[in-house]
Amino acid sequence: VNPAPPRDPDALMDGAARGGRAALARLLSMVEGGGPAARAVARLAYRAAVPYTVGLTGAPGAGKSTLTAGLIGAARGGWPVAEGADGDPEPIDQVGVLAVDPSSPLSGGALLGDRVRMQDHATDPAVFIRSMATRGHLGGLALAVPDAVRVLGAAGLPVVLLETVGVGQMEVDVAGAADTTVVVLTPGWGDSTQAAKAGLLEVADLFVINKADRPGVAETRRDLTEMLGLTERAWVPPILSTSADRAEGIDELWVAVGDHRRFLAETGELDRRRASRLATELRRVLAARMAREVDRVAAGAAFAAEAGALVERRTDPYDAADRLLGPDPG
Amino acid sequence: VNPAPPRDPDALMDGAARGGRAALARLLSMVEGGGPAARAVARLAYRAAVPYTVGLTGAPGAGKSTLTAGLIGAARGGWPVAEGADGDPEPIDQVGVLAVDPSSPLSGGALLGDRVRMQDHATDPAVFIRSMATRGHLGGLALAVPDAVRVLGAAGLPVVLLETVGVGQMEVDVAGAADTTVVVLTPGWGDSTQAAKAGLLEVADLFVINKADRPGVAETRRDLTEMLGLTERAWVPPILSTSADRAEGIDELWVAVGDHRRFLAETGELDRRRASRLATELRRVLAARMAREVDRVAAGAAFAAEAGALVERRTDPYDAADRLLGPDPG
Repeated sequence: VNPAPPRDPDALMDGAARGGRAALARLLSMVEGGGPAARAVARLAYRAAVPYTVGLTGAPGAGKSTLTAGLIGAARGGWPVAEGADGDPEPIDQVGVLAVDPSSPLSGGALLGDRVRMQDHATDPAVFIRSMATRGHLGGLALAVPDAVRVLGAAGLPVVLLETVGVGQMEVDVAGAADTTVVVLTPGWGDSTQAAKAGLLEVADLFVINKADRPGVAETRRDLTEMLGLTERAWVPPILSTSADRAEGIDELWVAVGDHRRFLAETGELDRRRASRLATELRRVLAARMAREVDRVAAGAAFAAEAGALVERRTDPYDAADRLLGPDPG
Repeated sequence: VNPAPPRDPDALMDGAARGGRAALARLLSMVEGGGPAARAVARLAYRAAVPYTVGLTGAPGAGKSTLTAGLIGAARGGWPVAEGADGDPEPIDQVGVLAVDPSSPLSGGALLGDRVRMQDHATDPAVFIRSMATRGHLGGLALAVPDAVRVLGAAGLPVVLLETVGVGQMEVDVAGAADTTVVVLTPGWGDSTQAAKAGLLEVADLFVINKADRPGVAETRRDLTEMLGLTERAWVPPILSTSADRAEGIDELWVAVGDHRRFLAETGELDRRRASRLATELRRVLAARMAREVDRVAAGAAFAAEAGALVERRTDPYDAADRLLGPDPG
């Protein structure tokens, strides 16, 4: 019988850094659960090295899981050398995978059952796969995902693949946790609404037209090219085609990810992005604190008294707020 | 040349209470615009009598505007007497209409141009019609609508018809500002998703199947009856049929609104609802205050310094939040 893993964050982090998968899984559960335990884990993780994070996002059914599974294999071969450059690939000794489904109330294990392709890697000790689902509200997940990515980094995993189902704002939030964001489409995507398209253009560093054995690839590529032509930027997102089911195009995709990583590093954009991301994360923590403060105040006797004064028309909500929170700084 | 209306809230409110429509319009613009001016107006309005508010909500194209226009005419005849009771209708000397479109970035005037049927009442001095649209974010509208309803009450309008386009949470929020909520459907509604149906069931005090000259009325009525059968409540929402275009069923609908109003008053439910609504409004004001506080802190030098410390991995967002906001009360 194995002893239960310790609950002390320091001891767990030590264990995870030495390769202990049970300790790592426990840390991620603590992050997912929120509250003081999540906070204690984050306190350690934010002081450790950040993994290079590749986000994959797209609509349900686009084939993200299969593509992610393919990328695990490619990543195990190391970072590709630049075209025309000499030398060997930069090794990647471990790969972490976080599969996030904001729409699912299920916890990790249940989701993973579906991810058949990923099971190919389930016995590889250099690969760590974990699903995250909404325990509470969506906002909680927006906080938990960056924390979880950092825990993987603190545990010594240099690369994390972050797979998320594309569902509006959440997709943008979670994509914000990645260094390179891959938007996965399928042929026929041209029929999507303009708003959906605009949101994806904003977050995409690379486009992948998956299921490229189906008809409509050329039209989708043309649509994307047209939309990209409307914006000016230093990095123009390349458009790749894959058939992840048949393992076609995966290596080319990984080369493109490597190109983007090199672009980010050489231009200083990686540091700028990460700094901006940390400011966003800090802002989210402040907002979550404030939301809890509202809950706390609203549960108190003073709030009930002010609500009573409102009923009797002796006050208005703004004066009541001043008394409950102190004068409005404006 | 008319002089510009005064901007002093007290003077405007006096003018509005004496029937000055320009003063009333100006007060509503101040509420819509948010900020200190909205607050100054709300301070007065929350101390005045509350109008009886009838909300109409439903999907775009359900015919809410035509129905609202019909109800204006019915309301001008006064509150209907209870079935079997003697006496005359309780008079309603003025009717206010707020048409809220959360999805439109247009300001009042533009929207009203479309509301042809309402133009029938545009020259009636006892009717005041106003559109509200999102000036800023949706949350702002959730604050502004109850404030606007109260301004109409403070100006002496005893009845307000509040028309909103049904768009998820916003619909529920705005419906929360009404005493009686009428959910407007059309034949064929049975094909909607269960989630959409459940949301409407939650807010509906009355159901109206409008465009009842079209096929599918019986099926929609059966669907509704089935769903209503699943819940137990003191007030079972009646299901009415109207053809607002042909002015059919409007008087019956107004009688049903009057029945619900009487039910609320007799059971004490009106007071309970209004008290609960005021608590919700106070909570929203607290949340808006806190959100502004996050904006203020995030714009400051201390925030920038903490974000810099995060980049250098010298801290974590939770410790940083403690320094920026004071210790976390938990």
